[in-house]
Amino acid sequence: MFARYLPILDWGRTYNKQALSNDLIAAVIVTIMLIPQSLAYALLAGLPPEMGLYASIAPIILYAIFGTSRALAVGPVAVVSLMTAASIGQIAEAGTAGYAIAALTLAGLSGAILLAMGVFRLGFLANFLSHPVIAGFITASGVIIAASQLKHILGIPAGGHNLLELLESLWHHLPETNLYTLVIGVTATAFLFWVRKGLKPALRKLGLSPGLADVAAKAGPVAAVVVTTLVVWLFGLNGQGVAIVGEVPQSLPPLTMPSFDLDLIRALAVPALLISVIGFVESISVAQTLAAKKRQRIDPDQELIGLGAANIGAAFTGGFPVTGGFSRSVVNYDAGAETPAAGAYTAVGLAIAALALTPLIFFLPKATLAATIIVAVLSLVDFSILKKTWVYSRADFTAVAATIGLTLLAGVEIGVSAGVLLSIALYLYKTSRPHIAEVGLMQDGSEHFRNIKRYEVLTNPAVITLRVDESLYFANARYLEDYILDRVVGATGIKHVVLMFSAVNEVDMSALESLEAINHRLASMGIALHLSEVKGPVMDRLKRAHFLQELTGKVYLSQYAAMMELGPVVGENAPKAAE
Amino acid sequence: MFARYLPILDWGRTYNKQALSNDLIAAVIVTIMLIPQSLAYALLAGLPPEMGLYASIAPIILYAIFGTSRALAVGPVAVVSLMTAASIGQIAEAGTAGYAIAALTLAGLSGAILLAMGVFRLGFLANFLSHPVIAGFITASGVIIAASQLKHILGIPAGGHNLLELLESLWHHLPETNLYTLVIGVTATAFLFWVRKGLKPALRKLGLSPGLADVAAKAGPVAAVVVTTLVVWLFGLNGQGVAIVGEVPQSLPPLTMPSFDLDLIRALAVPALLISVIGFVESISVAQTLAAKKRQRIDPDQELIGLGAANIGAAFTGGFPVTGGFSRSVVNYDAGAETPAAGAYTAVGLAIAALALTPLIFFLPKATLAATIIVAVLSLVDFSILKKTWVYSRADFTAVAATIGLTLLAGVEIGVSAGVLLSIALYLYKTSRPHIAEVGLMQDGSEHFRNIKRYEVLTNPAVITLRVDESLYFANARYLEDYILDRVVGATGIKHVVLMFSAVNEVDMSALESLEAINHRLASMGIALHLSEVKGPVMDRLKRAHFLQELTGKVYLSQYAAMMELGPVVGENAPKAAE
Repeated sequence: MFARYLPILDWGRTYNKQALSNDLIAAVIVTIMLIPQSLAYALLAGLPPEMGLYASIAPIILYAIFGTSRALAVGPVAVVSLMTAASIGQIAEAGTAGYAIAALTLAGLSGAILLAMGVFRLGFLANFLSHPVIAGFITASGVIIAASQLKHILGIPAGGHNLLELLESLWHHLPETNLYTLVIGVTATAFLFWVRKGLKPALRKLGLSPGLADVAAKAGPVAAVVVTTLVVWLFGLNGQGVAIVGEVPQSLPPLTMPSFDLDLIRALAVPALLISVIGFVESISVAQTLAAKKRQRIDPDQELIGLGAANIGAAFTGGFPVTGGFSRSVVNYDAGAETPAAGAYTAVGLAIAALALTPLIFFLPKATLAATIIVAVLSLVDFSILKKTWVYSRADFTAVAATIGLTLLAGVEIGVSAGVLLSIALYLYKTSRPHIAEVGLMQDGSEHFRNIKRYEVLTNPAVITLRVDESLYFANARYLEDYILDRVVGATGIKHVVLMFSAVNEVDMSALESLEAINHRLASMGIALHLSEVKGPVMDRLKRAHFLQELTGKVYLSQYAAMMELGPVVGENAPKAAE
Repeated sequence: MFARYLPILDWGRTYNKQALSNDLIAAVIVTIMLIPQSLAYALLAGLPPEMGLYASIAPIILYAIFGTSRALAVGPVAVVSLMTAASIGQIAEAGTAGYAIAALTLAGLSGAILLAMGVFRLGFLANFLSHPVIAGFITASGVIIAASQLKHILGIPAGGHNLLELLESLWHHLPETNLYTLVIGVTATAFLFWVRKGLKPALRKLGLSPGLADVAAKAGPVAAVVVTTLVVWLFGLNGQGVAIVGEVPQSLPPLTMPSFDLDLIRALAVPALLISVIGFVESISVAQTLAAKKRQRIDPDQELIGLGAANIGAAFTGGFPVTGGFSRSVVNYDAGAETPAAGAYTAVGLAIAALALTPLIFFLPKATLAATIIVAVLSLVDFSILKKTWVYSRADFTAVAATIGLTLLAGVEIGVSAGVLLSIALYLYKTSRPHIAEVGLMQDGSEHFRNIKRYEVLTNPAVITLRVDESLYFANARYLEDYILDRVVGATGIKHVVLMFSAVNEVDMSALESLEAINHRLASMGIALHLSEVKGPVMDRLKRAHFLQELTGKVYLSQYAAMMELGPVVGENAPKAAE
């Protein structure tokens, strides 16, 4: 009973020394990686750096208690931080107290939405974000994030709500570029790219395991932080206009209160919903990928509760919206984390950092953090989804192209909303004009029926057999009516129309009325209407209406049985199946 | 080429004396019926009575030129008039110039929307209004319209945006009831009910044809108008507080301009869209019903153009939103109208009425018009749709109940929008959790496969055959993944999973990725994945992806072929099909 909502009771019972030591090792590695990442994502969200650390402490512990994934590492992530900046940037000025409170409130709202979705088992709603839409959205977000960080690399002020505004603003301020900042930023970026692309293969050549090489590559940002901080401090570059992190309070996460102001909540409700869904989808796909490797199962509804608790924790401890991150979870998994306790130890490590290490990052240049972000997000950018969908399905391509285009040009919220709505609309459009195939009997001696346009099949000139390739419901009921009447009016000598229902998974009230109309109109032309291969659930329902009594023809179990009873089959070759 | 947009060129060419005389007779009958109806619907829309006449003149002629139905009579109708009142009532006070201009603007916008839908061939959009939602909406609208007219029967002021407000307001003002008005209103209502229910059977007993009896019954309102007007005039009842129509200008339809004020247009855009769609759906179902009787065809996209032209005509000639009405079209048809020219003659009749007859209705009591409306709309009220859908389909029932409930309690716009969105959401929800049946071979010697839970079928313990009863797309891709893995993890000795795709009409990119994941995961458990009965369009698409190369099993043309190849079939009875 309790274990349903508290997975910790499940794994906590069998926790032993071996698991403890594995979890501790993973925690140390993840902590080292998370310190610069947390600071950087706070910068991306437009918040003070310490909030990035705070957002990684309480949430990680709460997820360890309520979440079902054993490897997921929860905290600030790039896309959600960008969405946070985009939504609260419309309400308050970055750097003000109102901005920070809006971030807390956004986390609280997002937590409440996730919890509610979990309790009411609404996790399936996330399925309406199609894979291509997610891929397109993440790619476009990556581009925007990278562009938004260029100002820190150049040491200039710039801003904007979409890519064009951002680039225009950057171009406008370009002459103000600070050379020291630029050198630090470009060097750090180049170094981090090399760490990622070059160091890993190099280490692997030296005999390191792929996992360890990966971890070393992930620790690269720490090296960049240490070196650039020392450089700024030693040469006093902050006096030369290099923007630094500056004073960061030495403190455990503070107790904070999100705002309960109704106007603010109303303004943040839609962004919170989008952040919740995007965060959940990102998190669950990471969790499922990692769980599948160890044959563990993820419960999506419980994941919603875990992420909801984490976000509510963030709201009350000085954080901002969080979710399960891809890279940190993979590092956690590769480093051998066995249980969610590894997350708790990571939280302890980050708490120590927040208490003791913050004076050390006074001289940390913002350009280094920007470099960390740019290198991290560019690995998310993958435009190949456009080509893949173009080849495979124009509907998917349209949804992806709209998502990418609108995310870049109109902003993240419009982009992802448009992607979801467009993919639903395209699906509905397709189902509203179903594929209807006229079928005949295959000539291979089987009882199988196929499209007369694709196969040489046997047919009977007095019988038209139509395979309706869609569930019949209000959106296509009238289409079917028109299609059948058009088909019949043009032909002569037809005595029977058979609707093969093998692909009809549902007949709703509107479609039932259309079938009744078809039946009546065909009857007035002296044509009988038959059905074949009606599935159990559809038949159960039809039996509750009067339609079957009014039907001028019969309902056949199989199309073959219908064909055998309705008269001789003739084809191009021989009436062989009529024997 | 021209005939596509101008159906008049089609029937005009063969117009002869016989058609002329039939059309003229029909026009006279319809004109007599339309005079009180036009006045009444203007009253319902909160507009001066002459606007009801104007709204029937130019629109009817424009529809005759552009429309495809030969019997449809266009003009103000009850539901659209109610929606007009509801939408412009929020913008201006009834009786003011702003109110009338808003009505013109609403007609213009609605016309523009209909025209655009026609030109871009978007008529299919109307299919998303399911039959039960329309039935529920019309029933609930009928109740609201009848309730809104009670104030005229009682002679009291009352108003409200939904049924509860209306009833409360009526109750509040009840003590102010004007007895003279009440007597006229109740008598007129009773008379009109008798005309409809009692006169028709009586006339038929006297040997009149059903059509003529019907027409006589439809002329009842004119009798009520004449008698009650005379009574008020003779006894000077207007001095006793009986509200009368009063002075109506004697004029042909004036040239008017809708407003091009952007704020007004923005405020009216959504109502105009709803009015357009509802009006189109009402009109097209009348047109198709009548056309089917004479084996004529209706072109929905051209109908949009016809109705669009009619509404734009209304906007520039002092009218308000119009559409094809049910009762007047049936009367027109029954009276023998052969071509749209009958409509044009009706327009001439109404123009004469507007020019010459308006002084005669000075003393016409509003209670009589209200009685006309009440009797007309109560014939639309039919709550049996609730019972029908309850028995047949809970999803349809939910959509109807929500439509009726919200239309009554929250207003027409919210009601119909909620009905449409809810029925789409319920459809999507259903498709997101598809029915998946495990199937086996029927034991009747056929090659037909059916659900093992419903039939005694032959199966092979090493093979699981799943018939997926839904197109695979983003909303259910993950569900399928989970379902298959859950099914396989619990079982032993399974070597093959066959997905029978007879009901899969589409595999989108998300579903393709899920199939790839299923294939990989089953492969890691030593289980091969096969497909069977993949349809042409689905197969065409799968061939463009890498999936078929990676598939561990085969794609079989028929499920029977798959079963034959994958090993002996065993069942409760005998392995008879394996011979």
